[in-house]
Amino acid sequence: MVDMGRKVLILVRNLSDDERSLVEKMLNGYAEPYFIDDGVDEVAAEAEAAVVSTARHPRVREALRKAVKLRFLQTLAAGVDNIPFQDLPRNVIVASNAGANAEEVAEFTVALILTSLKNIVILDRGMRRGDWWGPTPKLLRGSKVVILGYGHIGREIAKRIQPFKPYIVGVKRRPKPDEYADEVVSIRDLEKHLPTTDILVVTLPLTKETRGFVDRRILDKLKEGALVVNVGRGPVIDEEALFEALSRRKLYAALDVWWVYPSRRGEPTFQNKPFHLLDNVVMTPHVAGSWPGFRRKLLEHALENLRRYLAGEEPRNIVDLEEYL
Amino acid sequence: MVDMGRKVLILVRNLSDDERSLVEKMLNGYAEPYFIDDGVDEVAAEAEAAVVSTARHPRVREALRKAVKLRFLQTLAAGVDNIPFQDLPRNVIVASNAGANAEEVAEFTVALILTSLKNIVILDRGMRRGDWWGPTPKLLRGSKVVILGYGHIGREIAKRIQPFKPYIVGVKRRPKPDEYADEVVSIRDLEKHLPTTDILVVTLPLTKETRGFVDRRILDKLKEGALVVNVGRGPVIDEEALFEALSRRKLYAALDVWWVYPSRRGEPTFQNKPFHLLDNVVMTPHVAGSWPGFRRKLLEHALENLRRYLAGEEPRNIVDLEEYL
Repeated sequence: MVDMGRKVLILVRNLSDDERSLVEKMLNGYAEPYFIDDGVDEVAAEAEAAVVSTARHPRVREALRKAVKLRFLQTLAAGVDNIPFQDLPRNVIVASNAGANAEEVAEFTVALILTSLKNIVILDRGMRRGDWWGPTPKLLRGSKVVILGYGHIGREIAKRIQPFKPYIVGVKRRPKPDEYADEVVSIRDLEKHLPTTDILVVTLPLTKETRGFVDRRILDKLKEGALVVNVGRGPVIDEEALFEALSRRKLYAALDVWWVYPSRRGEPTFQNKPFHLLDNVVMTPHVAGSWPGFRRKLLEHALENLRRYLAGEEPRNIVDLEEYL
Repeated sequence: MVDMGRKVLILVRNLSDDERSLVEKMLNGYAEPYFIDDGVDEVAAEAEAAVVSTARHPRVREALRKAVKLRFLQTLAAGVDNIPFQDLPRNVIVASNAGANAEEVAEFTVALILTSLKNIVILDRGMRRGDWWGPTPKLLRGSKVVILGYGHIGREIAKRIQPFKPYIVGVKRRPKPDEYADEVVSIRDLEKHLPTTDILVVTLPLTKETRGFVDRRILDKLKEGALVVNVGRGPVIDEEALFEALSRRKLYAALDVWWVYPSRRGEPTFQNKPFHLLDNVVMTPHVAGSWPGFRRKLLEHALENLRRYLAGEEPRNIVDLEEYL
């Protein structure tokens, strides 16, 4: 293999031929890609940059441990909470893929909101027993929707629900007015909105600060009968507190992200608390960011940012490591 | 009771005190209301106008048969297919409540579209068995949505899905351009769109002309894997042809309206074909037009039109009886 000088580890497993050509084409003239599927033991120590998907697989973690000269790590995911920051060289720049699938995650989030409000899972289950007497659908129109984490995804959600005429409150660290929200407020203003919130949508990433942020106190202050939708990360919400509020039927929930994940493909996996026995929760297996062909789009978005780094431009979505270490 | 001259039959059963006061208030100065809940046998023959809900109940049908001087019949429903036109006096004017719940039906329709595209019912069912490996969600963005019946409801659906960026084709008898649709075409242009249609939304009323309109030929021409959503009336679609296309997994469906309805409350009710055994159909019990407090809004909208009639103004939504007789 020709040594072109700069080496990039592509630590995304099982790439298709098409995805592999995309990588080769996009890095052509900038650096030489080395694919985890071919084995990267030999070159890991010399690599300057890497692209990772989830970093959960042992071979990926092993390659990252060996990459002692790594200066730039680009993720495929918008969330970087699974990156083993403690194993990376100091001064490495980590860039997330934030925004790459914001539109798609927003579509799924609106689907969760509407499926829950209209009780479609329960009505469908009834119809299959011949039972036509289910709960009455609720309206999105006129409801108050609080979007906790008003970033790329939050904004795309607001844009899609706006024609239904809810009252939309975006919550973010540095609030500024936005065309799709009725208000954008800071986190310290969240509390006063809770007693009038019909739908709380959580899109927060998992950081030191957000872990357990949606705790018992917040859930207690929410309006009776409110719907909690989580497409951020499971542990942003206190599992026990949410389970308890659902069990006493104070709240409804639609959850795509979880506290417990399968450790092996095909292995039946449940949470610490038996959410699967509740009928006031809609459950999906972390698929908000999946759609046919999604990995190619994520890869393209990620490689474009890697190319910026390699070309000496400022990469986008640089992660503040302080929030994770 | 004082005879004010003009008599109106309120043939909507089990009105609340609040709904009853609404009727009295809105008709005050125009006519005297007589409520079916109080018995209307005495006055039916003298009534000039009536308001009906579904006209399925025997007492309602009986009152209508007796109302030999009826000049104006206002329905609460947008669809008038259950009105016993043959029992009404000649020259009666029938007005539907079209548009009264268009926004709400549109909300529900978008919920059905998204629940189906994202496979939420199936994913939720899997999660309850600990199974995380379900079908990949599909995107509304970039899909082609054909709305068969581009009236009040069709337009409200288009308005709500527009931010998802599908390609929207409205189909109606007298097409004219509309801000929410990419195209509005006539019924004879439907066919050429079918092979590229991802989502066919049926909002058609049930008339002589629309009964069985969505037949085997239309379903056969639809794109492989297309989703058929019906919020119009069941018999607009050929039950057997749809069941067959679903059984061989050519299509998906989300159905809120049916061919067979329960005859008594609480009685298990299935269709002629076992749709309830298919996992590529989402089933809801004709609730698209229901929401907490919906009857009051329908009543208000209907009474406003009745008031127009009583005041000698032109009522809205006059039904062309030719389409039903």
